[in-house]
Amino acid sequence: MNLPSLLLEEAVNELSKFPGIGKKSALRMVLHLLKNNPEDSDKLGQAIIKMRNNIRFCQTCGNVSDHEECNICTNQLRNRQTLCVVEDLRDVMAIENTGQFGGLYHVLGGVVSPIDGIGPDKLNIESLFARLTSGEITEVVMALPATVEGDTTMFFLSKRLSDYPVRISTISRGIAVGGSLEYADEITLGRAMSGRVPYEV
Amino acid sequence: MNLPSLLLEEAVNELSKFPGIGKKSALRMVLHLLKNNPEDSDKLGQAIIKMRNNIRFCQTCGNVSDHEECNICTNQLRNRQTLCVVEDLRDVMAIENTGQFGGLYHVLGGVVSPIDGIGPDKLNIESLFARLTSGEITEVVMALPATVEGDTTMFFLSKRLSDYPVRISTISRGIAVGGSLEYADEITLGRAMSGRVPYEV
Repeated sequence: MNLPSLLLEEAVNELSKFPGIGKKSALRMVLHLLKNNPEDSDKLGQAIIKMRNNIRFCQTCGNVSDHEECNICTNQLRNRQTLCVVEDLRDVMAIENTGQFGGLYHVLGGVVSPIDGIGPDKLNIESLFARLTSGEITEVVMALPATVEGDTTMFFLSKRLSDYPVRISTISRGIAVGGSLEYADEITLGRAMSGRVPYEV
Repeated sequence: MNLPSLLLEEAVNELSKFPGIGKKSALRMVLHLLKNNPEDSDKLGQAIIKMRNNIRFCQTCGNVSDHEECNICTNQLRNRQTLCVVEDLRDVMAIENTGQFGGLYHVLGGVVSPIDGIGPDKLNIESLFARLTSGEITEVVMALPATVEGDTTMFFLSKRLSDYPVRISTISRGIAVGGSLEYADEITLGRAMSGRVPYEV
């Protein structure tokens, strides 16, 4: 891309490092900034810098937080026997929105992905086992993505978790509520069939 | 969105001000920043702030530039009789890439759009007429988008341009090179038919 300004080029290059944003989208973003006041760009730039330099990760669960411990870990009303292992912050938010889980979380910060060079050592995994040694936790629910990487991570975790006296479970896979069978893919439908549950009214 | 950190929320809010980026995409972008070093976020933030505060617009054509005048306006090898009016920087880049235009540009910085509150007074239009008073320019090519807003702008410009001794032209509309007739929309095909040109080998 042959840009007429070095300043513009640098901003486009930096913005195009985001996943899913190419040079053209980055240029569109920069032109949007140019149409607005410099103060708006200052606010954006400062918000990014301030966020990245001052944000903390909860020392217990690894979730993003403004404090040493996150609001969920410090909430004494939550069930402290059940621990849900998730990939990142968005999964915590999604599960919290369902209102169906009152336990604690453990945020891995990613999933095992050898192709991207992400091994278990790059994830927030050791602190998970450290949490289990106290014996307070009786069940670990693995709520990881239904992908090859998610399955690999669950396999790894379940092997290590078997050393601890905890029940290990995973969220159920199947046909989405409101979804028709004919549009479901074969693997999902197959799993829904093999993992059929007693019908309860 | 119920985010666990105010710093995170501020960064998400600022990023979601970009057109086409909602809260979910902004959160994805922020999580990407959190996976990388703080230095990367500093670079991004600084690039945005520096770009917006130090960038200049060519005082002749209105194009983005690092200097008082852009490279195209100062290039004495270009044809100074023909002026091409475009919406923004991206159009200059697109036309330059064709290699079919050797004249000068005038960048409006937008098109007339009453629905968005953008009247001719908000665009870089008066300086266009100022450029024409010298009498050096003999042709103005309007290369504006084929939208209602683009057409409105062209209508407005052509009215005002008729006071000056210049030829007024517009880029041709028609079937794209390599495009088949059956897939063209009716308006484009109709325009291509009514605006037919002599066949030359």
